[in-house]
Amino acid sequence: MPGNTFGHSFKIITWGESHGRAVGVTVDGVPAGLLLCEEDVQKELDRRRPGQSEVSTPRKEADRVEILSGLFEGKTTGTPIAMLVWNKDADSGSYDNIKDLARPGHGDYPYIAKYGIRDYRGGGRSSARETIGRVAAGAIAKKLLSYSGIDIFAHVIELGGICADPVSFDDILNNVEKTPVRCADLDAAEKMLEKIILALAEGDSIGGVVEIIARGVPAGIGEPVFDKLDADISKAVMSIGAVKGVEIGAGFKSAKMYGSEMNDPFIIKDGVIATGSNNAGGIIGGISSGMPIICRAAVKPTPSISKMQHTVNMSTLDETTIIIEGRHDPTIPPRMVPVAEAMVAIVIADHMIRSSRIGANSLLNI
Amino acid sequence: MPGNTFGHSFKIITWGESHGRAVGVTVDGVPAGLLLCEEDVQKELDRRRPGQSEVSTPRKEADRVEILSGLFEGKTTGTPIAMLVWNKDADSGSYDNIKDLARPGHGDYPYIAKYGIRDYRGGGRSSARETIGRVAAGAIAKKLLSYSGIDIFAHVIELGGICADPVSFDDILNNVEKTPVRCADLDAAEKMLEKIILALAEGDSIGGVVEIIARGVPAGIGEPVFDKLDADISKAVMSIGAVKGVEIGAGFKSAKMYGSEMNDPFIIKDGVIATGSNNAGGIIGGISSGMPIICRAAVKPTPSISKMQHTVNMSTLDETTIIIEGRHDPTIPPRMVPVAEAMVAIVIADHMIRSSRIGANSLLNI
Amino acid sequence: MPGNTFGHSFKIITWGESHGRAVGVTVDGVPAGLLLCEEDVQKELDRRRPGQSEVSTPRKEADRVEILSGLFEGKTTGTPIAMLVWNKDADSGSYDNIKDLARPGHGDYPYIAKYGIRDYRGGGRSSARETIGRVAAGAIAKKLLSYSGIDIFAHVIELGGICADPVSFDDILNNVEKTPVRCADLDAAEKMLEKIILALAEGDSIGGVVEIIARGVPAGIGEPVFDKLDADISKAVMSIGAVKGVEIGAGFKSAKMYGSEMNDPFIIKDGVIATGSNNAGGIIGGISSGMPIICRAAVKPTPSISKMQHTVNMSTLDETTIIIEGRHDPTIPPRMVPVAEAMVAIVIADHMIRSSRIGANSLLNI
Amino acid sequence: MPGNTFGHSFKIITWGESHGRAVGVTVDGVPAGLLLCEEDVQKELDRRRPGQSEVSTPRKEADRVEILSGLFEGKTTGTPIAMLVWNKDADSGSYDNIKDLARPGHGDYPYIAKYGIRDYRGGGRSSARETIGRVAAGAIAKKLLSYSGIDIFAHVIELGGICADPVSFDDILNNVEKTPVRCADLDAAEKMLEKIILALAEGDSIGGVVEIIARGVPAGIGEPVFDKLDADISKAVMSIGAVKGVEIGAGFKSAKMYGSEMNDPFIIKDGVIATGSNNAGGIIGGISSGMPIICRAAVKPTPSISKMQHTVNMSTLDETTIIIEGRHDPTIPPRMVPVAEAMVAIVIADHMIRSSRIGANSLLNI
Repeated sequence: MPGNTFGHSFKIITWGESHGRAVGVTVDGVPAGLLLCEEDVQKELDRRRPGQSEVSTPRKEADRVEILSGLFEGKTTGTPIAMLVWNKDADSGSYDNIKDLARPGHGDYPYIAKYGIRDYRGGGRSSARETIGRVAAGAIAKKLLSYSGIDIFAHVIELGGICADPVSFDDILNNVEKTPVRCADLDAAEKMLEKIILALAEGDSIGGVVEIIARGVPAGIGEPVFDKLDADISKAVMSIGAVKGVEIGAGFKSAKMYGSEMNDPFIIKDGVIATGSNNAGGIIGGISSGMPIICRAAVKPTPSISKMQHTVNMSTLDETTIIIEGRHDPTIPPRMVPVAEAMVAIVIADHMIRSSRIGANSLLNI
Repeated sequence: MPGNTFGHSFKIITWGESHGRAVGVTVDGVPAGLLLCEEDVQKELDRRRPGQSEVSTPRKEADRVEILSGLFEGKTTGTPIAMLVWNKDADSGSYDNIKDLARPGHGDYPYIAKYGIRDYRGGGRSSARETIGRVAAGAIAKKLLSYSGIDIFAHVIELGGICADPVSFDDILNNVEKTPVRCADLDAAEKMLEKIILALAEGDSIGGVVEIIARGVPAGIGEPVFDKLDADISKAVMSIGAVKGVEIGAGFKSAKMYGSEMNDPFIIKDGVIATGSNNAGGIIGGISSGMPIICRAAVKPTPSISKMQHTVNMSTLDETTIIIEGRHDPTIPPRMVPVAEAMVAIVIADHMIRSSRIGANSLLNI
Repeated sequence: MPGNTFGHSFKIITWGESHGRAVGVTVDGVPAGLLLCEEDVQKELDRRRPGQSEVSTPRKEADRVEILSGLFEGKTTGTPIAMLVWNKDADSGSYDNIKDLARPGHGDYPYIAKYGIRDYRGGGRSSARETIGRVAAGAIAKKLLSYSGIDIFAHVIELGGICADPVSFDDILNNVEKTPVRCADLDAAEKMLEKIILALAEGDSIGGVVEIIARGVPAGIGEPVFDKLDADISKAVMSIGAVKGVEIGAGFKSAKMYGSEMNDPFIIKDGVIATGSNNAGGIIGGISSGMPIICRAAVKPTPSISKMQHTVNMSTLDETTIIIEGRHDPTIPPRMVPVAEAMVAIVIADHMIRSSRIGANSLLNI
Repeated sequence: MPGNTFGHSFKIITWGESHGRAVGVTVDGVPAGLLLCEEDVQKELDRRRPGQSEVSTPRKEADRVEILSGLFEGKTTGTPIAMLVWNKDADSGSYDNIKDLARPGHGDYPYIAKYGIRDYRGGGRSSARETIGRVAAGAIAKKLLSYSGIDIFAHVIELGGICADPVSFDDILNNVEKTPVRCADLDAAEKMLEKIILALAEGDSIGGVVEIIARGVPAGIGEPVFDKLDADISKAVMSIGAVKGVEIGAGFKSAKMYGSEMNDPFIIKDGVIATGSNNAGGIIGGISSGMPIICRAAVKPTPSISKMQHTVNMSTLDETTIIIEGRHDPTIPPRMVPVAEAMVAIVIADHMIRSSRIGANSLLNI
């Protein structure tokens, strides 16, 4: 079974390579009657686009989305929504000299072990351009969820070892796009920027942590055993390239806590059941509790660095060295923010429909 | 879509509640021709059984597995393997007084929000007895993988804030069952035991970290986009009750590393491609690299504690307090070791078949 | 991917062999709050049980179902419902002499080609006992659908070349259990019975046609492209052993009709849209029209006959002859009636939930 | 769960409406290393294109396929293959006057009952243009299967009540494209043509039967219970618009046969196990027997006819009449031939991979 499909009731399939003709996604399961236009999707794609600041690769990608199906008179019809973004005619000649070298930290060798062939131009299928499809599908999920009062947002909370102070949800929403590192603690953001510039100067890269929040998710979605809401979120987030760890609520800190600290006491708030703290991160027993869902992703430093590295020639099986040319993102978390939001939005849209909280066929009254 | 099924080519469905008649699992997709008997499964169930030491609940559960289908003359036939374990006639009267109270840290309230009804006796479907099916299915996955030279084992590396020193794979295998905390650093194990006893004395509980290793997995299994091997492992491990975080290889530490540190250099070892370090944890770009797969799970402290806690009555919506009676596991990681091994084994068996490394239908030559 | 699972939102997995310890099914996706007891299931199993008349095998099978999970205080809880029926200790010695012979019309040889091994006792997994799981799951689907005003019933309309006259839905319901051939045209039923007795006397068997009707299905369920309601029903019915053809509405007769005859005119009836005829069989464009769903299955004659037949020894690859001992059902359609009803009920329950016409999680108001 | 995806190991998702911007398909699961170019796909699309003769609609559709991903240096890479065909700028104004009328025999009303909205221009998603995606994906399946010595072909065996005489496989392959009705019995083809012309003259349409043959399928593919090879083929074929019945081998005729007639005797032929006749149609117990697979589909007459018909206005709920303008295919079976081949090829490719007869990842030796 191939693995390019994600979700069950809200289902996406992505396709495309960085130097192929286009990249795209088809979204199946969007209920009929949702107001949707290309601009709804474009604004999210604009957030993931590179070349926006000194902290990301200066490649310019226009990345205009085209919606090819599933809309009629400005509304979704319940049929699949196909979207694509054309690739620019890129110079792929620069990859010829490294086509047999396994770039450290990249999937080149595992791909060859699996398929015996790979499109080595710019990473091929494993390129970050693959996330265009995720972000486009996530834009639809977000819009659908907004009808149910759910909003999803992410921010960088750690970069190159610099940790941000906690800020309120409102401050995250207000500040996150004010700085190219997408850290809502603006003081920390300054230091992160400096760290990036230092790493760039040394031809190196740095990692960080992204936090994703889903607010307004009603209690009772998710499934109790394997398709736990946190399990599905973990898969979704871990499936983003460069993510090496995922945690929910107190996460790894819970390993050091006592039960009496960790357990969130139940309370009555505004007449409904809530919890006094949120160590659970909004999910207990795999099912949403009605509290905000909190997820964090550990992101490794960009594997493409300009320092010389030790590696092998996959064809001759000789040991050798590699220098990766071109300028790459010195750090991934700021650009991952919209991708992580998209993946969490897709999971929650999927479970909202699975739990009949959003009608599978139609938002319209008939 | 309900969520009690896991896996695609090696697929399991579990069922049962703690105070129902039985718990069980059906495994579909085991190739024909595997030598298998109840003892293969029983020995893993014996490892997960409670009541084995002072660090776990003293409830005695015999937990004898019965294999009801899929075997003929000592071999699997390619048809589904149904297994069950009968529940003892348990006294469920003791749960009546808390049936409307939402136990902090437990899924009681989310279940009610989802289903409007729940079997409140002993946790019902969310009881740890649900893991019997996982462990039984995992025993088959492990045996199947052993034919391909793959073995999977886990150990406790942190408990109540005490961290074990790193030990070799051989020492893990030799030491892990020597101590009830299943920590292969036997000095640390002593301290962990003391910590457990202190927590018990205070009516409290502690958390920890379990590490799972899969050795011998060939390069080239996994899928490049959504069904990445690490994404599927994350889902599998996060779906175990009480897990709040998952990481692969360097995990959250990678957020603080430079690219030049994190990237594992490729080398030639014994004539094949390998890496000089293993920060990737055996998976790059979602596909196995041939190096050992390393995964860690953060486990929260047991939510059932005997200290008085604040909560609500779900029926009357009043705030109140709860005291949970009976003696519960003071900590979960030691007992989670076989469960975590099972889940990782199931994921790897699934991907070995998905990648045609193990024949989907039969191990026999015909 | 193995193939013992059916359905998406209402999902079943069956297991078991005729001479194994038991046969069973697990049903996942039954909404919480459905009143259910073993008797609801048993009454359907009693309808499929052999040994009830002169037209079926005289083997006596008590076939008492046990529900092992998913119920609490007489209601479903939303968790999986596991059910099993123990097999009687059967004498399997009688199969030893034919274990290497491929019985004509049976799957013996394809099984060996696929798995290299098979449980040859009584047909193993391909035995008609496998349908116990289908009927048990179907009983739950039927009960669930009855809450939505949907009922599903089947009858024999052709047997051994004798065709029944059309009768009203009420006459089907009244007459079908009055005769062991389950043909609601009681005159035709008499002739069918005679035909069976003649075939039996010659050591031969006969085929027939079963018609299944689903009444009360609302307009608008099903999916427009691959998971058309008629496509899913076709798969469900064709997956029953011995079925060689499936048709919907006018079926094969439509091949000989003009468009002006075949098209059902739309009308207004009792204030809602209906059709004046029902050549479509209640499904247009893959989606229910609100008219009764009509499906017919062509059933081949029982392959196990006592006449001598030509075959091969699969082990030695010699041609030889085979005589199948024991008394088998001389015809399958009468016993298939409850199985066919079950499969159609499962498809419709699945699509009712998929289309949010029945809530996926709960029937209870909360 | 939406329903635009088909297959498991060889998986397709189609999208697009007749008057949207394009129609397309993404194919996931094609092993790496298959030689493939647009011409391989185009030649099948050319066979399904309308406007090729007097027996089909004179609309001219160029229907040039573009492959957007999954190929590198002329070979598949194991990643998804996205394909699209642009729609011509069509005049959709002509549909405005019937947008609220439910065309008899069409899914207009069920779509509205399901979604509350529909793209009424030219049938929207239910247009025959949806089959472009099926045929394009089927072209890849056919090419993949040809590497395993499997070929798949279809022909019209009945049209407007005129039945063709049986012809050999070679004659089918030689003759089928010699006549616009795609009937290999050329005498019958003449009469069918006359029948079409008569129906056209009366503003009416006729139905027929298409037979599909898969030759070279090895014994042992398919699954024994729900995903029987014949069950999956039935679903695949029944999911094609206008199909109202499916049969395998002797099909509905088997209902009238004795067991001693129906059972195919096993024999040894060229050293391997075969059967002397093929009433089973190449599938026994849901698994291939090694004999040719034979399937027939009953196709209803085209629902779009120019005769006046009785219907309702879905908006006002008034009864009224409708005249469908434009020239439509007077009969569907000739144009369905490549579509039916495609769907059967997809099912067989899927099961070949599921059974590890074709490697899931790669055709290359590494």
